[in-house]
Amino acid sequence: MSGKRVLSGTQPTGKLHIGHLVGALENYVNLQNEGNECFYCVVDWHALTSMYSNTSAIKEHIYDVAAGFIAAGVDPDRSVIFVQSDVKEHAELHLLLSMITPLGWLERVPTYKEKKKQIKDKDLSNYGFLGYPVLQTADIIIYKANYVPVGEDQLYHLELAREIVRRFHHIFGKEIFPEPEAKITEAKRVPGLDGRKMSKSYNNAILIEDTPEEIWEKLRVMKTDTRRVRKTDPGVPEDCPVFALHKIFSPEEVRKECAEGCRTAGIGCFQCKKFLSEHLIKKVAPVGEKLRKLKENKQFLDSILDEGARKAREVASQTMEEVREAMNLKRR
Amino acid sequence: MSGKRVLSGTQPTGKLHIGHLVGALENYVNLQNEGNECFYCVVDWHALTSMYSNTSAIKEHIYDVAAGFIAAGVDPDRSVIFVQSDVKEHAELHLLLSMITPLGWLERVPTYKEKKKQIKDKDLSNYGFLGYPVLQTADIIIYKANYVPVGEDQLYHLELAREIVRRFHHIFGKEIFPEPEAKITEAKRVPGLDGRKMSKSYNNAILIEDTPEEIWEKLRVMKTDTRRVRKTDPGVPEDCPVFALHKIFSPEEVRKECAEGCRTAGIGCFQCKKFLSEHLIKKVAPVGEKLRKLKENKQFLDSILDEGARKAREVASQTMEEVREAMNLKRR
Ligand code: SF4
Ligand code: SF4
Repeated sequence: MSGKRVLSGTQPTGKLHIGHLVGALENYVNLQNEGNECFYCVVDWHALTSMYSNTSAIKEHIYDVAAGFIAAGVDPDRSVIFVQSDVKEHAELHLLLSMITPLGWLERVPTYKEKKKQIKDKDLSNYGFLGYPVLQTADIIIYKANYVPVGEDQLYHLELAREIVRRFHHIFGKEIFPEPEAKITEAKRVPGLDGRKMSKSYNNAILIEDTPEEIWEKLRVMKTDTRRVRKTDPGVPEDCPVFALHKIFSPEEVRKECAEGCRTAGIGCFQCKKFLSEHLIKKVAPVGEKLRKLKENKQFLDSILDEGARKAREVASQTMEEVREAMNLKRR
Repeated sequence: MSGKRVLSGTQPTGKLHIGHLVGALENYVNLQNEGNECFYCVVDWHALTSMYSNTSAIKEHIYDVAAGFIAAGVDPDRSVIFVQSDVKEHAELHLLLSMITPLGWLERVPTYKEKKKQIKDKDLSNYGFLGYPVLQTADIIIYKANYVPVGEDQLYHLELAREIVRRFHHIFGKEIFPEPEAKITEAKRVPGLDGRKMSKSYNNAILIEDTPEEIWEKLRVMKTDTRRVRKTDPGVPEDCPVFALHKIFSPEEVRKECAEGCRTAGIGCFQCKKFLSEHLIKKVAPVGEKLRKLKENKQFLDSILDEGARKAREVASQTMEEVREAMNLKRR
């Protein structure tokens, strides 16, 4: 695969953590380095679906996310890094697509009801929350993206985008958009400090921007296999979130040594975490340092986002011309 | 009332008929002449909710509607005449409002289920159809309109707009918008040729652009009180759609004479219609002539719509700056 157009969006709902780094961000960089034309979008309008009642943090998180992209290796000269709300065309296409998207398609979205259950402390029964996949479709197809890197849980959304594209072509009799294809991101299980999935909302994350000292402080108190009450109790690495991080960050031989030591009570959790810490920090710290430096220079980040928005608008406005033409909305 | 801001939208879904003329359009002119700052919008995006599967006519009807405004007496120098899709800010505000509008509010809209029942030949269960009142709210408040001329059937929509405004102010803690008030248009019952409500969809309308000859041809075959099978059968004017038009277009004494003649079989329906025709044409023909002339000069209409869009955008973009500020969406 090479030379295809890629679109991906990240919500500015929090600081990026190491789960993002070894998941989406590495994927972003790979797709870029394989020679694709990548559009990486900070989707602030999407963030409103869950954060409308407290928007003050979104602004800051836009910088967190954009700086995270760059620190991880996304190159603003080769990829387009931009903020969704800087390209108003997304809103126009969203409105137009809303006119041809059956309500039933949206009500059937599995993540819709799930998410509503999950996040109980906010009232999410808003019109825009239901229409989330319509806006997402607009984000994707306005750049005529061929590939969208998604996790398994987003496959339904992407299928919906493809259905909306087909419906558009069917109704207006013009083939404008490629049907976007999923580029499935292999889902790495990245546990948080408490053993649950690492997530901003659980407050259990190791942030990319954490200093080595902060990372160690977090690892030090991280949950381990509960069987190891005393150092002399053997444990089961497969049941330990620390070991799950070993699998991602440590080289084969270190991982083996720790697993063996754990099962035989030949190593303490402190020592095991020290080994992990060394390799995790080796990978995360350089990115974190870049990230912290980038965030100190918002003017520089703004100049990158401005240039990205300019490039994105160029493509989006061209697509919108075709859309208005196909829909007979152009008077002249 | 004077010096207030007024917003009204008309869908470009067909040619304007005399029901529009004695209803909305006269009202438009009155509001303008009372010294209000009026924004009269041809809402083509709204037309998509019902016409998405056949958009080819919308373009032409935009000219029908805009020319109708002007022919009826809306003065482009005093009022802003423009096309909704020329002012993209409506789409952005619609998207932002969608994030704070509870689904339940929309599902409760009485016209929503009614309209779905009424128009059976089109599939209207689209996301955008449900969100109609959100887009309408954006149309209104983006101009900070104080008054919206509406019929009784639109009161619920306007109450919804007021609720959305209050919710916006509550959530974001800034009072940006006046709560728009309904300026209730006295609903004149204007029957069509078949006695049902005059409507494009019933194909029973006398168009503003009809020539005097065409108007007479339509009146000649118009339905009358079914009691008057022969000229010697007396009738009941109150049961006759022709008489309903007399009430709108004919002077008192003509109306009396016809009613009397109808009840006593002293006048034939042909003669009765002749009287009506004379007075209806006196009122409609000059407007119709202007309308036909205006439609011959689309370039002129475009120049008016362009200038209107420029003025509308000036206000709308200023409002959007305030909205983004209130919602914390401005980075700088
Ligand atoms: S030794 Fe390592 S793998 Fe075993 S329980 Fe302790 S931290 Fe987990
Ligand atoms: S005389 Fe006039 S009012 Fe009476 S039925 Fe005929 S058209 Fe109608």
